[in-house]
Amino acid sequence: MAKVLSPIIPELAALVHQTPGTLSLAQGMVGWDPPPGVALAVAEALATGGPALHRYGPLLGDPELLAVITAKLTNQNDLDLIGAELLVTAGSNMAFNAVAQVIAAGPPGEPSEVILPVPFYFNHVMAVQLAGAVPVPVQAGLIPDPERLAAAITPRTRAIVTVSPNNPSGVVIPARVLAAINQLCALHGLFHISDEAYEQFVYGEEPHWSAGSLPGSAAHTVSLHSLSKAYGLAGWRLGYMAVPQALLPSLLKVQDTVLICPPRLTQHAARAALAAGPAWCAPRIAALAKLRLQLLAAVAEQQAQGLPVRLLAQPDGAFYALLQVAVPLSFDADTLMRRLVLEHRVATLSGGSFGLDSNDAGPVLRLSYGLLDAADLAEALDRLFSGLRRLLATAGPSDQ
Amino acid sequence: MAKVLSPIIPELAALVHQTPGTLSLAQGMVGWDPPPGVALAVAEALATGGPALHRYGPLLGDPELLAVITAKLTNQNDLDLIGAELLVTAGSNMAFNAVAQVIAAGPPGEPSEVILPVPFYFNHVMAVQLAGAVPVPVQAGLIPDPERLAAAITPRTRAIVTVSPNNPSGVVIPARVLAAINQLCALHGLFHISDEAYEQFVYGEEPHWSAGSLPGSAAHTVSLHSLSKAYGLAGWRLGYMAVPQALLPSLLKVQDTVLICPPRLTQHAARAALAAGPAWCAPRIAALAKLRLQLLAAVAEQQAQGLPVRLLAQPDGAFYALLQVAVPLSFDADTLMRRLVLEHRVATLSGGSFGLDSNDAGPVLRLSYGLLDAADLAEALDRLFSGLRRLLATAGPSDQ
Repeated sequence: MAKVLSPIIPELAALVHQTPGTLSLAQGMVGWDPPPGVALAVAEALATGGPALHRYGPLLGDPELLAVITAKLTNQNDLDLIGAELLVTAGSNMAFNAVAQVIAAGPPGEPSEVILPVPFYFNHVMAVQLAGAVPVPVQAGLIPDPERLAAAITPRTRAIVTVSPNNPSGVVIPARVLAAINQLCALHGLFHISDEAYEQFVYGEEPHWSAGSLPGSAAHTVSLHSLSKAYGLAGWRLGYMAVPQALLPSLLKVQDTVLICPPRLTQHAARAALAAGPAWCAPRIAALAKLRLQLLAAVAEQQAQGLPVRLLAQPDGAFYALLQVAVPLSFDADTLMRRLVLEHRVATLSGGSFGLDSNDAGPVLRLSYGLLDAADLAEALDRLFSGLRRLLATAGPSDQ
Repeated sequence: MAKVLSPIIPELAALVHQTPGTLSLAQGMVGWDPPPGVALAVAEALATGGPALHRYGPLLGDPELLAVITAKLTNQNDLDLIGAELLVTAGSNMAFNAVAQVIAAGPPGEPSEVILPVPFYFNHVMAVQLAGAVPVPVQAGLIPDPERLAAAITPRTRAIVTVSPNNPSGVVIPARVLAAINQLCALHGLFHISDEAYEQFVYGEEPHWSAGSLPGSAAHTVSLHSLSKAYGLAGWRLGYMAVPQALLPSLLKVQDTVLICPPRLTQHAARAALAAGPAWCAPRIAALAKLRLQLLAAVAEQQAQGLPVRLLAQPDGAFYALLQVAVPLSFDADTLMRRLVLEHRVATLSGGSFGLDSNDAGPVLRLSYGLLDAADLAEALDRLFSGLRRLLATAGPSDQ
C-alpha cells in the first residue's frame, strides 16, 4: 500500500479546516443543487416504492435506470451499444476502480500496465496501483499525441485512459485525436477507457465527443459517466459506464464483492436527474462560462502587470485551468499549495497530484471555478495573485 | 480474474426469474421495511440539508453519523475504541473489500494469505482473491476450533476471519472461542476480521459477543457491521467498521479511490435506523424466532418420516440453517440447487458456494427463513422436502 499514491483532497481539507475563511479554488464541484425533480423522485420512491426499494436489487442497476441510461448514451453520446453492457456504480470512481481490478490481472510477476497521459486524474493512478498494475504516466502533451502514447505501449499494456474534458487541464481533446487513440487501442488489443465526467462542460469550439460513438469501438471501449458534476449530485455518489460485453463476467464479480447492487433509492434520483437532462444543465453551465472568462481576464491582467504566470493550456472545458508560476521557486508545487492556504487563505491543488512535476519551468496549480460565485472568485483570485507576488518576492526565483 | 469465484446469487436469480412462482429460501434478507424514522430523516435532510447534502463529504463518513456509531459500538458492543478508527461504507461488503485490499499487499511473488473457516461467506473469498491474496479455507468445525485455525497459520498469513452469528450455518460462535481466536491473532501478529452483520439475530442461550470488546484488541481487530439485516436496509447499502488506527492511512487510499465519500443522504437514513435501535428490531427478530422453530419442526418431522436429512449445526443465530441430504447423490449440491428451482419451484443456496463440498456425506443446502411469512415458509419447505423425495427416488443414493 505504501506504493499507492496518497489522496490529496483529505490533506488539503485538513489544511483548509485549520485556516478559517479560506476560499477554495480547489474543489471539483459545481455550486448548484440537483434538479428539483430529484427530491420529488426520492419522496415518491419512499412513498410508493414498496419493499423492493429496501431489498437487494440487480447487480447492474435497476432496469428502469438502465433504460434511461441506454436512451441517454444513444441520444446524447451517439453510442452504438451493440456489444456493450451498462453498469451503475456508486460514483464514477468506483466504475474506474472496477475496470482497473478487471483488466489489471496479468501473469504473476508480470504486472499489467495502464497508460495515463499527463496530467492524469490522481484517483486513476491509485486505482491502477490498488489493482496491482503499473500506471505508466506519459508526457504526450496537453492534447495527448497518439504517436507518443503509441511509443509507450509494451506487451504488458492493457489500456489507455483519456479524460476529456480534462481534469485538471480543462482541455477538450478534439474528436480526431480521441478517435486516433481509440483506433490505436483497437490495433494493439488494448482497452480505451474514456472518462467523460465533464462531458457537458464545454465552452469553446471543440464539442465533447465520445470515443464509444466510433463505429466498431464497443468491443474495446469503456465509457465512464458521472452525475456528480452537471447534476450537482457529488454527495450522492452516482456514476455509470458502458463496457465491452467481454468484460462483464469479471465486472460482475467485482460489483458483487464491492457493492452487491447500487443503492436503490439513489437510482431514483439518477433517473430524475437524467430526465432533467442537458436542457436543465445548460443555463447553469452558461453561468460557469462567465466565471471562466473572469478567470481568464484576471490571469491576463496579472500577466500585463508583469506577474510571471501562464495557463498551461486553453481551458475550454470542465471548470479547471492549470496555472504555472513561470519561474522556478525554491520549493515545489505541494509546498506552494500549502503556503497559499496557510498564509493567504486560498486553496488550490498542486500539479504534483496530477503528475505535473515542478521543474525548471516552475510549479503548476490547478484552479477550479466550479463552486464560487463571481464575487468570491474575484476575492479568491486576488488572494492567489497577491499571495504569489509575496511568495515570489521572498522565495523565488530559486538561487539554484 | 478467472481465479476469482463466480457470484452465485445472480446465477440463482436468473434461474428463479425463468421459473415463475418460485418461493425463495435463498435470500439473505429480512421481510420487514426499515424503521419509519428512516423515511422521515431522508425527507428532513432533503428539506433542510442545504447544499452540503449534495457535495462531497468526509471520507470516513459524516461526523454526526460517526458519533452515533461510536455510541452504538460503545454501548451495544462494549467496544473500547481507543486505538480504533471508524469508517462508513456503502455496505459491509465494501468494508471487507477495503480491508482485504489493504492487508493483502505482500512482497511480489509472495501473496498474503487470509484464513477463512469453512463454511465461509463467498464474498469474503472473492474480496481476498480480488486483492491478489490467497484465501485459505480451513475445516475447523462449525464452531471453529482455534487450534485447527492455528495449524493453518504460515509466515504469509495476515488475518483470520470469523462470521458470528454465522452465514451460512446460523451458528453463534461462543465468546470464549472468539476470544481465543482473537488472542491467537494477537500472538501471531494477525488481524482478526470479525463480521458481525447478524449481531442482533440470536435465539439461543449463546449471546452475540464482539471480539473488539476484548481489552487490548483494538490494535488488531476489525469489526464489521451492517444495517442491511436488522434494519431492513439491504437495498440502501449501508455498513461501517471499526479498524485499528494503523490501517487507517491505507484504508483512506482505498476509500478515496473507490467511493470518495459515503453517500450523504443515506447517512441520514443510517442515523435514523441506529436511533430506532435494538428495541425496534427486537419484536421483528422475535417473529423470526417463530419461523426458525417452524423450520426446525419441519425438519424433525421429515426425519421422523424417514427422509435422510439433517441440520449440520444448531442454527441459533442469523436466519439460516444448513440442511444436509445425508446420502450421497449422483450430482452435487450446485445441481441439486438448480433442479430444486427448475423442477420444484423452491430456491435454496448450494453449500458449494460456502466451501461445503458435496462429499460422501451428501450435499448441503443453505436455507434462509428471513424473508417469508409462516404460510409461504410452510409451502416452501413442502416443496423442498417433496422435491428432495422425488430427486432421491430417481437420482440417489449414488451408484458410485
